[in-house]
Amino acid sequence: MLHTLKNNIICALATPHGRGAVAMVRASGKGAVEAVANLLDEPKREEILKAGGYSLHYAEIRSRGETLDQVLIAVFRAPASYTGEDSVEISCHCSNYIITELLDLLYGEGVRLAGPGEFTKRAFLNGKMDLAQAESVADLIESETEAAHRLAMNQMKGGFSRELAEMRNQMLKIVSLMELELDFSEEEVEFADRDELDALLDKVMHRIGELVSGFRLGNAIKNGIPVAIVGATNTGKSTLLNLLLGEDRAIVSPISGTTRDSIEDTVNIGGTLFRFIDTAGIRTATETIEMIGIERTYSKIKQAETVILMLDAEHPESFGMSISSLRDKLSDGQKTVIVLNKCDLLEENGKGPDLPTLLTSIRDIASRAGMPPAAVLHISALKGEGLDLLRKTLTELRPHAETSPDVTLVTNMRHYEALRSACDALARVKEGLAAKLSTDLLTQDLREALYYIGTIVGEISNEEVLDEIFGKFCIGK
Amino acid sequence: MLHTLKNNIICALATPHGRGAVAMVRASGKGAVEAVANLLDEPKREEILKAGGYSLHYAEIRSRGETLDQVLIAVFRAPASYTGEDSVEISCHCSNYIITELLDLLYGEGVRLAGPGEFTKRAFLNGKMDLAQAESVADLIESETEAAHRLAMNQMKGGFSRELAEMRNQMLKIVSLMELELDFSEEEVEFADRDELDALLDKVMHRIGELVSGFRLGNAIKNGIPVAIVGATNTGKSTLLNLLLGEDRAIVSPISGTTRDSIEDTVNIGGTLFRFIDTAGIRTATETIEMIGIERTYSKIKQAETVILMLDAEHPESFGMSISSLRDKLSDGQKTVIVLNKCDLLEENGKGPDLPTLLTSIRDIASRAGMPPAAVLHISALKGEGLDLLRKTLTELRPHAETSPDVTLVTNMRHYEALRSACDALARVKEGLAAKLSTDLLTQDLREALYYIGTIVGEISNEEVLDEIFGKFCIGK
Repeated sequence: MLHTLKNNIICALATPHGRGAVAMVRASGKGAVEAVANLLDEPKREEILKAGGYSLHYAEIRSRGETLDQVLIAVFRAPASYTGEDSVEISCHCSNYIITELLDLLYGEGVRLAGPGEFTKRAFLNGKMDLAQAESVADLIESETEAAHRLAMNQMKGGFSRELAEMRNQMLKIVSLMELELDFSEEEVEFADRDELDALLDKVMHRIGELVSGFRLGNAIKNGIPVAIVGATNTGKSTLLNLLLGEDRAIVSPISGTTRDSIEDTVNIGGTLFRFIDTAGIRTATETIEMIGIERTYSKIKQAETVILMLDAEHPESFGMSISSLRDKLSDGQKTVIVLNKCDLLEENGKGPDLPTLLTSIRDIASRAGMPPAAVLHISALKGEGLDLLRKTLTELRPHAETSPDVTLVTNMRHYEALRSACDALARVKEGLAAKLSTDLLTQDLREALYYIGTIVGEISNEEVLDEIFGKFCIGK
Repeated sequence: MLHTLKNNIICALATPHGRGAVAMVRASGKGAVEAVANLLDEPKREEILKAGGYSLHYAEIRSRGETLDQVLIAVFRAPASYTGEDSVEISCHCSNYIITELLDLLYGEGVRLAGPGEFTKRAFLNGKMDLAQAESVADLIESETEAAHRLAMNQMKGGFSRELAEMRNQMLKIVSLMELELDFSEEEVEFADRDELDALLDKVMHRIGELVSGFRLGNAIKNGIPVAIVGATNTGKSTLLNLLLGEDRAIVSPISGTTRDSIEDTVNIGGTLFRFIDTAGIRTATETIEMIGIERTYSKIKQAETVILMLDAEHPESFGMSISSLRDKLSDGQKTVIVLNKCDLLEENGKGPDLPTLLTSIRDIASRAGMPPAAVLHISALKGEGLDLLRKTLTELRPHAETSPDVTLVTNMRHYEALRSACDALARVKEGLAAKLSTDLLTQDLREALYYIGTIVGEISNEEVLDEIFGKFCIGK
């Protein structure tokens, strides 16, 4: 393979594909500067070869004796570069022909195309950032709101990973001493202070507990605050979802049970990302496929921060059943917004109870059912009326912790799972200490906790985990 | 307006929108460096303010007391920049949130969003390139093949515009002397040597003639060599087009006359761009809409370098009519490839004349009709057979001048029209000289020729023309 000959230099288009003025191709690895210099005529070739880090050069890329492009070349020298290696960034005209030719010329110099996230992976392997920081680079790029961006930026700048690494080092010292005791097991010495360990465990478990409990919020900020839209069939759930998303995402038909799969999509409302989940109507299903949809509805309700219960103004007789069947599915801390739909028909028909009467009766029923709603609103999904107030209500109900700039929230499922596993292991150590378990049993659980914490910052990692993490990145990052 | 306060600094995203690792936002104008410096905390702010041209800086963009992003800032000082003004290029993480915020922060510093092509327009206005060079920047970005890229790069590096400017200067000297004569018209002096003028006219007209005659080829290289696909209705023209384009671009149905509008698209075959034009079938149309389609077919045939005539193997009786009706539409220099389609059915049916007989008869008919084809091929569009040979034939038939690296070809319709108008005016001067017309009539035509040549390189330009030219650019260029 060519790349083994040239110390594994990688290159990729770092800017998006598409129509634009400028594109940037980057190369990294020992010999990257030389490889790029070879694409230039003298005296530019010599200039680039001798270039120091953080230097910028105007040059002509030559291909088969002709000018391929007039470019800007930025040279970075190890370790002062993104990857920690010698690196070059070539800004060229954004033409597919030029980009393809340039990558081809680099290939001819023994530079291979980078895999997804390979530049950032190298930054991690060369100690430029820890694993949690590296992971945040992808989150940063994906961030759609200020809050999500802030969380990713916090994590990229060190965030909780520095704190975790510090705790891990403290615990590592203690466990090393305990393992030393094992070597002297005949003599019953105690190098490690058990009180100190107990105090450290309390501190670490408290902090990890905070991080674990922040995950639900962090995840909501990153992926959108989950809002489930539930209600009896044909109450207009899909129509409302379409209005909130501003597109024809859900299939809307007046036939009961049209929405069999739950449909979800995110939308940015006033700077907060919401993830709306349309669900199959809750009713006694006769068809099997409908049943599956309804099972899913229950699980979607569980995940939601806020549940919108849709009621049909034309069917006040069903309010009680809808409210009580939702109540049975709610868990603590979930907020409910009851939305009375089809209020336009109410006015048109001019028969039955009027709007104020209906709203009062809804509040009464919900209160008696022990499910006081955060708000009761009335809309006409068909006419698009009452939507603004609904949006405002949802924004007010959103979790508010993200408004603080220095809050540390775990947003990554991998981190969350590692933290929970670490916490479980630490709890066992704590119990073991109380029960005066033998040192080797204690160290075993401690080592396990250290392992899990280590996987977050990357002190423990293997090629498979790294591939899994960086495989989700785009090429060029 | 904010921007009038700050000397009209412009900014834009220069890299494409979309998913990528890095994005670049550029700003240009007097005060651009200061505007960007204001987004940084000390001591970076001071560092950027003092930065010389072609310097590269790592910095944190600050927004409302928080880090928006960690970026690379390239500073360029007038006149050594793309626009000729103080300029800054900010490479940030490619996140929509970050890009939008960054442009917003710059707006807060009095920097306005650039219009399409405004950076390049400034480069032209500041004398960094002439107009033809500036126009080539857009061509360079759009180039899809090596040949198109080479033409654009030639033009960007000066190409024929330097040559034209030189000719124009020589003519300008003579016309100035002639105009001086007019001031002394009573005295019948001749400051300008008429023989010298005549010789210069010959030289300039010869060169402009070359450029004008190269336009058809230059345009073909830039926009694709036009290949019209013609034939009686239902011979499979649309199916062939789809195969050549590799997608379902044309509507294919067995109903005669499905293709009413001509459909065209480009495809790169072995490094040459072809523009295939599907046409309505040539037949006596009964419906009006069909008639319009057929009129268009005739005009499309006129534009084509190569015409593919499709014949239906199942209908040998129609060969004569198809060939003779195409012959009437062809002009000199156009090449014809006759393609016998539906050869699969021939084998299946097993009746009627066999393939070799049919091919021979086609050659005979074409030869007798006085339209010897460049090639006679047989395919099955339905089965996708015979396509490779057709592609190879088309590539061999393409005009070959583009293979020379230093050929100068006009590719721009605006240049072509200006050159033709200049040539017409020069021809009148030439005739006038021979007829010994008065100096004031000669200078009038000479001035007209100078005007047209001047519009190409931009020595003559107005805001409207510039807006027209740069309006076609993308924003950020």
